[in-house]
Order: sequence, then C-alpha cells, then structure tokens
Amino acid sequence: MRLLLVGASGTVGQAVANELAPYHELIRAGRHSGDLRVDLTDMASVERMYEAAGPLDGVITTAGNVHFGELAQTTPAQFNLGLQDKLMGQVNVVLAGIRHLRDGGSFTLTSGITGAEPIRLGANATTVNAAIEGFVRAAATELPRGLRINVVSATLLTESQDAYGPYFPGFEAVPGARVALAYRRSVEGVGSGRVYTVWQ
Amino acid sequence: MRLLLVGASGTVGQAVANELAPYHELIRAGRHSGDLRVDLTDMASVERMYEAAGPLDGVITTAGNVHFGELAQTTPAQFNLGLQDKLMGQVNVVLAGIRHLRDGGSFTLTSGITGAEPIRLGANATTVNAAIEGFVRAAATELPRGLRINVVSATLLTESQDAYGPYFPGFEAVPGARVALAYRRSVEGVGSGRVYTVWQ
Repeated sequence: MRLLLVGASGTVGQAVANELAPYHELIRAGRHSGDLRVDLTDMASVERMYEAAGPLDGVITTAGNVHFGELAQTTPAQFNLGLQDKLMGQVNVVLAGIRHLRDGGSFTLTSGITGAEPIRLGANATTVNAAIEGFVRAAATELPRGLRINVVSATLLTESQDAYGPYFPGFEAVPGARVALAYRRSVEGVGSGRVYTVWQ
Repeated sequence: MRLLLVGASGTVGQAVANELAPYHELIRAGRHSGDLRVDLTDMASVERMYEAAGPLDGVITTAGNVHFGELAQTTPAQFNLGLQDKLMGQVNVVLAGIRHLRDGGSFTLTSGITGAEPIRLGANATTVNAAIEGFVRAAATELPRGLRINVVSATLLTESQDAYGPYFPGFEAVPGARVALAYRRSVEGVGSGRVYTVWQ
C-alpha cells in the first residue's frame, strides 16, 4: 500500500515506520522533518501535504501536543491548545483526507491511555484523547467509498520511560514495536470505528 | 443549597429548574435570559457571572451548541464551533468555578447520548460529548476542598421530539422530568467523576 505517516519522527512514529516500511511504500511527514512538512493545525498546509503526497491507501497520524498542568492553574488558552493541536490537527487530516484517499483506504489516529485512565496534571490529555475516540466512533459511521477509520491508544512506551515515566506511576510500559503492531492491524485489517488499545 | 443553573431557559434547563427550585435557592443564568447573562465562551464573562452570583454550593450547566452536518462537508471552523461552545464553555465554568464554589460544592455538566451512540450528521456532537465526559473523569481526580464533578448524558427528550426526533430514529425519548432527576442526584449525591446516563 501507499501510506502517509504524519509524525514520523516521534517516538511512536519511528516505531510505526520501522514496522510498516518493509511491507509498504511509506511517505513520511512532520512539522520539522520528513519527506513532506506540514502544520496540522493549518488546513491549507494539510491540503498541500495531500496534494504533494499523491494517491494514498492510508494515512496514519502519530502527531499532536496537549497541555499538562494543574486544572486550577490552567487557562482557557492553555486548555484550548490541546484541542487545536492533537484533536483538531488529526480531525483536519480526516476532513481533508476523505477526498484524497483511494477507495477502501484507512485513517489511523492516535489517542492514548490517559483518555481512559487520568493521570496527574493530565485533564487536558484525558479530554483530548476521549474526544479523538469519540470522533473516530462517529466518523466510521459515515465515511464513503469503503474508507475506514480507527485509533490506537497506547500506554507509556518503554522508549519514553526516562522522559515520562514519573507521570505514569505503576503503569507498565510497552515497547514501541508492540504499539506499532496496533497501527499495522488498523491499516491492513478490516475494522472501523475501533479503539485498538496497547495498555500492557 | 445555593445553586447556579447556566442554560436555565433551554428544554433541559427548564426541567432541571422545575425539579430543583422547590428544594434549593436557584440562580438562573443564560445567554439571553435569566437572573444573570453570560457568554460561556468568554472567560471574562464567566468570571463576572461568578462575581455576581456570590457564594455557591453547586453549578449546573445545560448550555452549549454543536455543529450538525455531513463530515465530508464540514470545515475546520464549523467543527471547532462545537469545541469552543459546548466543550470549552463548560470547561470555562469549571476552571473559573474552582475558586468560587464553597467547600464540598459540585459541578454538573451536560453531554448527551450521542457521545456513545453516533447519529447521522452528528460527528461533532459525538466528539464534543465524549470530550466532556473525559474532562469530568479527569477533573474529578484533582478538584480541591471536596469539590465534586459529574456529567449527565440524556437521550432525546420527549419535549424535543418534534424538533429533533428525526435525527434519533428508534431512540426512546424520555420526559425532561426524568432527566432532571439525574442532575439532582449529582448535586445532592456523593458521586464524583460519574456519567449519569438517562438513555431510556
């Protein structure tokens, strides 16, 4: 298949690229690196990415930031950051991508375990991840031409333990290579509207 | 208790007011009517509402709009409308309210059955309602001073059948008076981080 991976340079993105590259033609996109540069919060930039990418059988997004901080100290602008970046960024990829994907193509988005399991300072993350999963549940019911959409929700990655481990006390980390399998299942499988969890 | 009801003039808001008024001191707020006028998307307006309301034991929001339309025809701006109005509007009420509620006070927000059960043209509604429930799940873990937060998810109201019935084929409508009980349970009960569903 001809696949576009947005967020290819991130920890999850690299693992997904390693898993998919032997089997597919992979076009890497990112904000600061990759075959194509894109700002997912800017629909014109997303459209340019699709025009440059050409025909696609699937799009995978592993990009997006959220705000971490105490709820009582969080400003509306900070809270909105996660909505605009991780949520609207991925929504934009789908809204623009519906016209660009070949029949039967797939979208695979990224949420995270905090959508179901709140962590300290993570109210914005829980909100955004729950929203992404809601979006996928609904979008799956109306995508045309056999298009599918799923989302992968992973726990802390082994590769991220040094940086993020303290925020996930008692969470069992999983290797990126295992998380990447969930993306492959979404891309090559038949499911739609699914949340593929890799939580342990 | 001294309670602030935001969205008091809506169909749900009226039912909630009818249920709570005999037992509590109720301050009604709304965009165009009520004891206090407020634009929930404007944090300065939300702050003014709290200043004018005085000490509170609970806040209930039954306000918020989402975008309805086919996903493939939806623009990012349209999709963002629901995020800013129904989601950020209620988030703003909580962010500002943490400082204003008395010890042990409660927030009761509103999502809707479409968060779990997508309907035609409702991708934005599903996304927003799922996000609100995620927010409540996380916020409950870090609210100070015994503050609680819950959300009510109702199906179609009997009173709204003429207007919205065609969007909910085969959904069993429930009277607003039954939905209002869920709000009362949240306000007067002990639960926190709960989604109180009234789906049939």
